[in-house]
Amino acid sequence: LTGDASHPDAASRIASGVLTGEIRDLARAITLVENGTERGRAILRTLFPRTGRASVVGITGFPGTGKSSLVDQLTSAYRSVGKKVGVVAVDPSSAFSGGAILGDRIRMQRHATDSRVFIRSLATRGNFGGLSKATRDVVDLVDAAGYDPILLETVGVGQDEIEVIEAADTIAVVLVPGLGDDIQAIKAGILEIADLFVINKSDHPGAERLEKELTGMLSLGGKAGTIPILRTVAVRGEGIEELCDQLTELQALARKDGSAEERRRKRSKDRFLALLRDRLVEKALDRLGAGNTFGEVVDGIHARQIDPHAAVDRVLADLNLSDDS
Amino acid sequence: LTGDASHPDAASRIASGVLTGEIRDLARAITLVENGTERGRAILRTLFPRTGRASVVGITGFPGTGKSSLVDQLTSAYRSVGKKVGVVAVDPSSAFSGGAILGDRIRMQRHATDSRVFIRSLATRGNFGGLSKATRDVVDLVDAAGYDPILLETVGVGQDEIEVIEAADTIAVVLVPGLGDDIQAIKAGILEIADLFVINKSDHPGAERLEKELTGMLSLGGKAGTIPILRTVAVRGEGIEELCDQLTELQALARKDGSAEERRRKRSKDRFLALLRDRLVEKALDRLGAGNTFGEVVDGIHARQIDPHAAVDRVLADLNLSDDS
Repeated sequence: LTGDASHPDAASRIASGVLTGEIRDLARAITLVENGTERGRAILRTLFPRTGRASVVGITGFPGTGKSSLVDQLTSAYRSVGKKVGVVAVDPSSAFSGGAILGDRIRMQRHATDSRVFIRSLATRGNFGGLSKATRDVVDLVDAAGYDPILLETVGVGQDEIEVIEAADTIAVVLVPGLGDDIQAIKAGILEIADLFVINKSDHPGAERLEKELTGMLSLGGKAGTIPILRTVAVRGEGIEELCDQLTELQALARKDGSAEERRRKRSKDRFLALLRDRLVEKALDRLGAGNTFGEVVDGIHARQIDPHAAVDRVLADLNLSDDS
Repeated sequence: LTGDASHPDAASRIASGVLTGEIRDLARAITLVENGTERGRAILRTLFPRTGRASVVGITGFPGTGKSSLVDQLTSAYRSVGKKVGVVAVDPSSAFSGGAILGDRIRMQRHATDSRVFIRSLATRGNFGGLSKATRDVVDLVDAAGYDPILLETVGVGQDEIEVIEAADTIAVVLVPGLGDDIQAIKAGILEIADLFVINKSDHPGAERLEKELTGMLSLGGKAGTIPILRTVAVRGEGIEELCDQLTELQALARKDGSAEERRRKRSKDRFLALLRDRLVEKALDRLGAGNTFGEVVDGIHARQIDPHAAVDRVLADLNLSDDS
């Protein structure tokens, strides 16, 4: 299929459609990539040289902090200055809270008829690691289709979300007043990845206190003054313009001091390693020899007949990858 | 060094010491394993057939829920019935909250002079995945030294912690009243891994409400009635006996219905896969050929000259692991 470019389903035809901004082709390419198809990979391969142009803005924070309203308002703000905006919303959580992001998306309805806004939700269940890989691929596709900026929103603040949001160039962490009591519960990781804090719902009591606690934690981490803290009331559109300006400023600064470049290089590295890891395991398990199937190896470990390290040594030897070979 | 068993530092001598319950040898073995030494691996290999006997009880939940007090009280309760208790406390978080677990440990001081209680804290910084591997190895060592039960405590409730706590046979998730408002913020994953919920600080207002919300979430997930919910006031020792009884009951049930066996088999599988993944990547990167070093591959991806999928294909081909070879 990938060979015949004139075929409407050919990878090369879909890739061309993505480049010229055909929304249907973009949606199709994303589905092919999400499903892990060879055609999806061919499309990515074709488009890869045309990616890396969009600014990717990550928006993360606990559920209920109003991230979706913020994304909605940011979308309007960027549209009003003529930008073509991509929104990728990612929810790594499972069935328990799986409905949330769908409900959130309904709020974005007002952009649904705007052909210069592209919105896509990604969700998975239990497939750790896979989601951050898929996110990077999807961001690449939206990027190749000419959307800039791309707003990358995650639900929640766990390790999965941190891995997902690291596909962004600039990361805004959204908090709300009242979280102050539980500030210890804020995962350390999220403080470390923030380029910017947004205190949303800042008309609620406790905004002042939250800002103080944040400032305190930042100075504890030697980051006082380097991470801006902004206040917004997203549902009323308050503080959105300042947020846009601040994001633009941070992006300009990151380009100037080389940190943008550094971060993108690290991303290339992580992405390569993650893919390499997955493919190597896949290949290694494919090649497990007779009398040495995956199930038998696991049985041996389970029965404590062979320790896991020795079992791995054996597989590496089978693949001619052991130290002595 | 590993060859001469009479040498005080020989792996086989340390392994023997672990088996006879020498605390100094156990501590030493753990350090060798944590540091990823070949000697540590030799010790694990020797001891592996003597592991898998201890019941591993996982205690997890948000910081500030009183997990350490619970572990302290559980330790006393198990000691009072003559058990030899191991405590492994794991903190995957970084410098921001790195001090917490150390402070918590101080509360365990009253067990410090008890030779039948072994306490060890594990912490790391940014080395995702590595910690859950190290935890499993350390639990094996404590197990081989004859401690049973082993209480495995984690700080926080992120994906890292979930991976760590999955080394346990029975998992208790600790919550406190007042968290009710933020119950949405409780990661879905933690609800799915709980064999038992503990509402600690249950003398605080809101215990009733939290129990109702938990029951509601469990019935939403089709688990109503299958996951016990217990109330404790750990600092006063209230509910601890009931918790011990409940844990014993759950363990007996899991042995009877085969779920204990099933879980341990899954653990053997996950452990093997995780090790295999790490070692394969390590080997693959070692073998990257001339003009194709790791840095060069990353540079190529960064410059968008080669897409990450194609780069991985190339590495696999170099290792004779591609589809056609």
